[in-house]
Amino acid sequence: MSTRTLIRGGLVVTAADELHADVLIEDGRIAALAAHGSDAAARWTADRTIDATDRYVIPGGVDAHTHMELPFGGTSASDTFETGTRAAAWGGTTTIVDFAVQSVGRSLREGLDTWYAKADGKCAVDYGFHMILSDVNEHTLGEMDKLVEEGISSFKLFMAYPGVFYSDDGRILRAMQRSAHNGGLIMMHAENGIAIDVLVEQALARGETDPRYHGEVRKVLLEAEATHRAIQLARVAGAPLYVVHVSAEEAVRELAAARDMGLNVFGETCPQYLFLSTDNLAEPGFEGAKYVCSTPLRPREHQEALWRGLRTNDLQVVSTDHCPFCFKGQKELGRGDFSKIPNGLPGVENRMDLLHQAVVEGRISRRRWIEIACATPARMFGLYPQKGTIAPGADADVVIYDPHVRQTLSAATHHMNVDYSAYEGKTVTGQVETVLSRGEPVIEQRTFTGRAGHGVFTPRSTCQYLN
Amino acid sequence: MSTRTLIRGGLVVTAADELHADVLIEDGRIAALAAHGSDAAARWTADRTIDATDRYVIPGGVDAHTHMELPFGGTSASDTFETGTRAAAWGGTTTIVDFAVQSVGRSLREGLDTWYAKADGKCAVDYGFHMILSDVNEHTLGEMDKLVEEGISSFKLFMAYPGVFYSDDGRILRAMQRSAHNGGLIMMHAENGIAIDVLVEQALARGETDPRYHGEVRKVLLEAEATHRAIQLARVAGAPLYVVHVSAEEAVRELAAARDMGLNVFGETCPQYLFLSTDNLAEPGFEGAKYVCSTPLRPREHQEALWRGLRTNDLQVVSTDHCPFCFKGQKELGRGDFSKIPNGLPGVENRMDLLHQAVVEGRISRRRWIEIACATPARMFGLYPQKGTIAPGADADVVIYDPHVRQTLSAATHHMNVDYSAYEGKTVTGQVETVLSRGEPVIEQRTFTGRAGHGVFTPRSTCQYLN
Amino acid sequence: MSTRTLIRGGLVVTAADELHADVLIEDGRIAALAAHGSDAAARWTADRTIDATDRYVIPGGVDAHTHMELPFGGTSASDTFETGTRAAAWGGTTTIVDFAVQSVGRSLREGLDTWYAKADGKCAVDYGFHMILSDVNEHTLGEMDKLVEEGISSFKLFMAYPGVFYSDDGRILRAMQRSAHNGGLIMMHAENGIAIDVLVEQALARGETDPRYHGEVRKVLLEAEATHRAIQLARVAGAPLYVVHVSAEEAVRELAAARDMGLNVFGETCPQYLFLSTDNLAEPGFEGAKYVCSTPLRPREHQEALWRGLRTNDLQVVSTDHCPFCFKGQKELGRGDFSKIPNGLPGVENRMDLLHQAVVEGRISRRRWIEIACATPARMFGLYPQKGTIAPGADADVVIYDPHVRQTLSAATHHMNVDYSAYEGKTVTGQVETVLSRGEPVIEQRTFTGRAGHGVFTPRSTCQYLN
Amino acid sequence: MSTRTLIRGGLVVTAADELHADVLIEDGRIAALAAHGSDAAARWTADRTIDATDRYVIPGGVDAHTHMELPFGGTSASDTFETGTRAAAWGGTTTIVDFAVQSVGRSLREGLDTWYAKADGKCAVDYGFHMILSDVNEHTLGEMDKLVEEGISSFKLFMAYPGVFYSDDGRILRAMQRSAHNGGLIMMHAENGIAIDVLVEQALARGETDPRYHGEVRKVLLEAEATHRAIQLARVAGAPLYVVHVSAEEAVRELAAARDMGLNVFGETCPQYLFLSTDNLAEPGFEGAKYVCSTPLRPREHQEALWRGLRTNDLQVVSTDHCPFCFKGQKELGRGDFSKIPNGLPGVENRMDLLHQAVVEGRISRRRWIEIACATPARMFGLYPQKGTIAPGADADVVIYDPHVRQTLSAATHHMNVDYSAYEGKTVTGQVETVLSRGEPVIEQRTFTGRAGHGVFTPRSTCQYLN
Repeated sequence: MSTRTLIRGGLVVTAADELHADVLIEDGRIAALAAHGSDAAARWTADRTIDATDRYVIPGGVDAHTHMELPFGGTSASDTFETGTRAAAWGGTTTIVDFAVQSVGRSLREGLDTWYAKADGKCAVDYGFHMILSDVNEHTLGEMDKLVEEGISSFKLFMAYPGVFYSDDGRILRAMQRSAHNGGLIMMHAENGIAIDVLVEQALARGETDPRYHGEVRKVLLEAEATHRAIQLARVAGAPLYVVHVSAEEAVRELAAARDMGLNVFGETCPQYLFLSTDNLAEPGFEGAKYVCSTPLRPREHQEALWRGLRTNDLQVVSTDHCPFCFKGQKELGRGDFSKIPNGLPGVENRMDLLHQAVVEGRISRRRWIEIACATPARMFGLYPQKGTIAPGADADVVIYDPHVRQTLSAATHHMNVDYSAYEGKTVTGQVETVLSRGEPVIEQRTFTGRAGHGVFTPRSTCQYLN
Repeated sequence: MSTRTLIRGGLVVTAADELHADVLIEDGRIAALAAHGSDAAARWTADRTIDATDRYVIPGGVDAHTHMELPFGGTSASDTFETGTRAAAWGGTTTIVDFAVQSVGRSLREGLDTWYAKADGKCAVDYGFHMILSDVNEHTLGEMDKLVEEGISSFKLFMAYPGVFYSDDGRILRAMQRSAHNGGLIMMHAENGIAIDVLVEQALARGETDPRYHGEVRKVLLEAEATHRAIQLARVAGAPLYVVHVSAEEAVRELAAARDMGLNVFGETCPQYLFLSTDNLAEPGFEGAKYVCSTPLRPREHQEALWRGLRTNDLQVVSTDHCPFCFKGQKELGRGDFSKIPNGLPGVENRMDLLHQAVVEGRISRRRWIEIACATPARMFGLYPQKGTIAPGADADVVIYDPHVRQTLSAATHHMNVDYSAYEGKTVTGQVETVLSRGEPVIEQRTFTGRAGHGVFTPRSTCQYLN
Repeated sequence: MSTRTLIRGGLVVTAADELHADVLIEDGRIAALAAHGSDAAARWTADRTIDATDRYVIPGGVDAHTHMELPFGGTSASDTFETGTRAAAWGGTTTIVDFAVQSVGRSLREGLDTWYAKADGKCAVDYGFHMILSDVNEHTLGEMDKLVEEGISSFKLFMAYPGVFYSDDGRILRAMQRSAHNGGLIMMHAENGIAIDVLVEQALARGETDPRYHGEVRKVLLEAEATHRAIQLARVAGAPLYVVHVSAEEAVRELAAARDMGLNVFGETCPQYLFLSTDNLAEPGFEGAKYVCSTPLRPREHQEALWRGLRTNDLQVVSTDHCPFCFKGQKELGRGDFSKIPNGLPGVENRMDLLHQAVVEGRISRRRWIEIACATPARMFGLYPQKGTIAPGADADVVIYDPHVRQTLSAATHHMNVDYSAYEGKTVTGQVETVLSRGEPVIEQRTFTGRAGHGVFTPRSTCQYLN
Repeated sequence: MSTRTLIRGGLVVTAADELHADVLIEDGRIAALAAHGSDAAARWTADRTIDATDRYVIPGGVDAHTHMELPFGGTSASDTFETGTRAAAWGGTTTIVDFAVQSVGRSLREGLDTWYAKADGKCAVDYGFHMILSDVNEHTLGEMDKLVEEGISSFKLFMAYPGVFYSDDGRILRAMQRSAHNGGLIMMHAENGIAIDVLVEQALARGETDPRYHGEVRKVLLEAEATHRAIQLARVAGAPLYVVHVSAEEAVRELAAARDMGLNVFGETCPQYLFLSTDNLAEPGFEGAKYVCSTPLRPREHQEALWRGLRTNDLQVVSTDHCPFCFKGQKELGRGDFSKIPNGLPGVENRMDLLHQAVVEGRISRRRWIEIACATPARMFGLYPQKGTIAPGADADVVIYDPHVRQTLSAATHHMNVDYSAYEGKTVTGQVETVLSRGEPVIEQRTFTGRAGHGVFTPRSTCQYLN
């Protein structure tokens, strides 16, 4: 006999629907939804019943872009898989897709196994992996096919960071051709890193070393250029393309133009580009270092274009690019030279709340909130309908969300392992109350009830959006 | 105690999901969905059980553009509300939104009451009304507000047909301003009718009287121009806009450009533009008259742009513009003068099948099929989630669809009251097997089991797509 | 033996070249140019020699858009052909193309003859006529052909001013078709007057009666819309199109898009749109009335787009739309109702100087100055190379221009018959010193030496820009 | 006392004008133009008089893109400066701008001196040099400034040919920044050579070795991409950009978009792209090798876009990219491997005639012919008004052109040192009759009367088109 949980009386919000429905969970999966008050619902009994009256019942968030424990610039991202996935759970995110890294000269296999080992037994919620390709060659192209079969169906390439992750256009083209063949999805960091490095060198030579120069040298036009180039290479290869962390209006325009042509081109943005700006980068006293990430924060007027892109579906996903570095000891590595500041911001715990705030402010609808934060990332990366929705058969990753309570974001109260919040002091309306992961409560009435190792590696099928 | 119907073992396809789920109906509404094989599903009992193994279980179609019994050009569309809605049911469509017509010089009220009377007690499936505004003035603007409250929340205007339905740009602007205020949605027939009438007169003067000249004088550029103009007027008014029966690639481009800006601009196309072309208009021996409608059929290469528009969501809805006239006695009125051919094609029975054929051919996905034919028209015109989906609480308008059987479309077998089929001899894969309307079977295993008067007027709320 | 005038030592500036050349005039025409200091130049003798050292020697200006004595709104433009052409000469303009007006119900012939009579024997400089078509019908279409032969090769239509000059799209299409046939050029006032009149009525009903509301109701989008529509109608007709007094960035964009397609679409702007803005319309105490014209002045940021259009050649001509009304007694007709303010600004005397100021400020080059003010209008309207350049065989319409002297524009010193200057108090660098019309001095060292009747009607051939 | 030549009775055609004028030459320069039949003209006497009745009198052509004696792929272009400039003269071209090449690791100085030596004393007509930058570094950036002062004011970079001429985006950016500073103009070979090399390798691996595969691997999208990228880099640098040998419609579109924004972006195409196509590349029996050049010939439909670009001024210059290799012994190096075929076509002798043929066929006007072939290249590269026009003070580089005679292009009759003609057998109307270079006849009634060494190095000022 199965374990049954019943969620009564909430408003079930998915990407498609808003339903006054009761949700029945059997053995970690959604078994059924019934209209609240119907005979069918009335007859249900359960081992545990959660009262969701006045609450939203939403799918657990899917954050398709995190970097736990990422080695970068001589240090490592400060959240481990354990601390990071616990913070994710606190924030209503029940699945992350992190990035395994291939080292130059090594195999994908080796990189992937390293990341399997890092995450294994540590995670509070389920996780998958994308693979970062640092070295495209005949051997690694062959490995791509095998990884797709193993459930690693997306591969990230960099047009930035020459000498580190950078791939030239030939390598990008080869990887895209391979993905067109094996069903993988190429994810692109689209910035012209070769040109940017010239500007970095020139800025430093002029004595422009403060964090704000990070935003000035990584120019909007060089993000837009790389976005355009990636799209053209994808067209030549006949492959789909997913552009990560889009921050500039001009880049959105490139995506929109491609999508008007019916191309399989997709775009992700992140809360930091929607809520923060170069004003933060310019904060005095090296405070700006807290906001150094790439693509960089943009002038405030770009935010409007990003919100519009989310409404027009020229941007489809909001992920976090969660990659925290403590201000003390880590961000400080770049005092006197902005190019040495580790790139990245904390955010995995804040995403669902910040996007709900956008609902409150009328920028997006409730359903669109769930679509960009849960359903679309799940579909995009082959996790749907297991993840990203509340429907019969889906994993019972469910969040009971209180849309009325107000909270103030702060490093003092957050659960990420980092000594500052990018949103310190910001007050938002709405908060996670209870979180189920495959039917198990990991947050219960704002108490962590989960455990390291509950979360399991989740192999993914291929992108579900291809025309 | 309620009446319960259970649909077992099918693949439930909605705009959002594809689920192996059993569907429980109580008292004409969807009560619950449960994963097929789950304990929850296993425990269900019902008065009637429908075996949907190997079948799709889909929402009944919503055809948002029909013209039953429309008086036009000295004759009337050949389908009554009785014959037309019966044919709709045969074709898997369980809701139509028809057009009540205001006569010039008369009130909206009078026109609407006339149409209420035409439909009352006749319909096999549920129906709503849009209102055609022939005469925009202070009085009728005031009536618009009342109609929105009454559930008539959309208003059609014509940039074509001078002297009949035509409104000039000033009247259009006034109606749009009013709709911005009262929540109504303006539907636009976008063709520059003033310029077209010049070309008609010139063509006839040159002796160009055959049906194919209908397609030549109603130029692509004049549809695109009017589409652009309607969009600009809507921007001035701050109002949303829905463009009906888009047929030209250049018009799609205008919609795409507007949508890229984030405007509330929507577009509908029809099966005839997706499957037929000017080749049909040019059929010899006056056969071309069967294909005379406005906007006209376009050269074949426009089809690709329309399919692309449906994929990119620059077009959101496929309706039929069902407005049949018999070849004998009706279309024949235009022998020797194409401008006298009654404008319109039959199609209400064919829409769901033709679009499923597009699924079979790989042009759209199954979910997109349901989205453009059921869910989006329902949302667009304020009927969702009552209509257009299968979800707890929705009306139990459900179609059991056999995706494997092949059928040949023909006037010999169709149920529309018209003496020809626009798709005569075309073979498609897939067919409606059983249709429930609010839980009642109206088609059962391809036998009509419904009745005139089962279908009721369904008041609508306002458009659910506004940013 | 001919009369010979020799201009020595100046910098000859044409649309194509800047040459240190001496210019020899024989019998009212340019006979020869020789390199200054060459043997050929040294051998020349003349009856009169003008020393142009340190001066520019430029072609006389061609103002292709003036309205002398135009009846409008119950009054008439305050400059007669005598006062207006004299002022033109003072400003370095030696040719105007004015507009003969057809009255509704009357023939083109009658309108044209009226204007011939107005101008005959009055003008200080040469003139031609465009024809305003107020009434497009079979008869007037036939007259168009004859007028082209008579040297009236351009025809103006209005999409604005319903009930006065307005033509609907059908009439516009017919006139364009005719021009495609007879070589005429359609000039378009592109504003959606039907929609604007609705906004005017609504504004007045709200008590918005001040001059600045003139600018608010005549919306940018309604200029852009009409521009787009005119272009599409021209495409349907296969005819070229010249859009007059372009004032809005969005309208420039429509022209640019059409021109990128290689269409014969041209655009004119005027000094008032380049130098003035809605700030002027908003001047207190009814002063704004001085700046009421249609298309209206736009917010300041549109100026940049117009300058850019002039540089990219998306705009080709700067004319004045000179149509002065005195503030006292004329502009004042609209106190309490902006819609009653006569539309129009004085400018025929200021154009060459204002555009030279743009040279001084680096917005355009010297050659471009001559191109947009002399050569292109001459080519556009079939006057080149008789007018618009300094080349062997051309009419000796020559201006000796002092590029160094500063002057302050003012009603106190200008020669136009109007009681205010739109540029009162503005200081510019550069001034006309001497003006020859067909070899005769009409301004000599800033003394008027011309006479009424020197200027003659100049028949024009057709547009020289058609691909 | 000077030497005087008089050209009587011709139609002088320049970019700006068509004049019935007599032309007086003194000491190698144009001294004066006088209206034919004027007293001024009648009084002229001369040492030599050329009767140009029924002929065009046009400026000598300026071919801004030739590669005499270029070492490439283990061989060298077959025309020396002596044979190549003689052929140029035969074809009515009196100025070439060739490319001096910097070798990787060497200075610009050394490369330039090598090219000075090659040309010195050999040329039949005047010549200048652009500099190819193969190695952008601090030293060569410094040299750029000096070269601009020396009259080498343009610098070519390659986004193609990795390992040979290729510069990465960082080097391109640096060179552009320098040119923004020193007034130089960057000329770009815009193809994504890194991606192309992948496709080349893959094609060869598939056994696709015939010449036509050269056209298939060098994809339109990769030309358009590189064009877009070059434009964005130029925007970042604030520098102007000149894109050489544009061949693809999509690349023209990138230029048009940039120019609509008012950017200083320019485009050149070549006769081979206007008159030849991939049909030629596909000629059987290795004949296709004759047409191998980069950018490659494109499918025929691109020609229309190029002609349109020339009409809309989105393309401004037609040069030849003259770089001949004999079929025997040179092109044959690529039998069995298209990537080993030396890239280049002969054409310096054919350009003026082919473009005149376009005049005959109505594609461009006579004035535009002179503009794209003489005046604009002269202005673009700082040679105007010394070269590119017929105006007082200009060098007397004059062609007497017979517009009526028909000729058939053929290797049997041409004067280029190459064993085939790209236009073998093509009949065109119009032919050069007499050519003066600085007043000296080099072709006289179709006899070569020039000499090696008449032509001299001509230092250039900077681009004259910058906004």
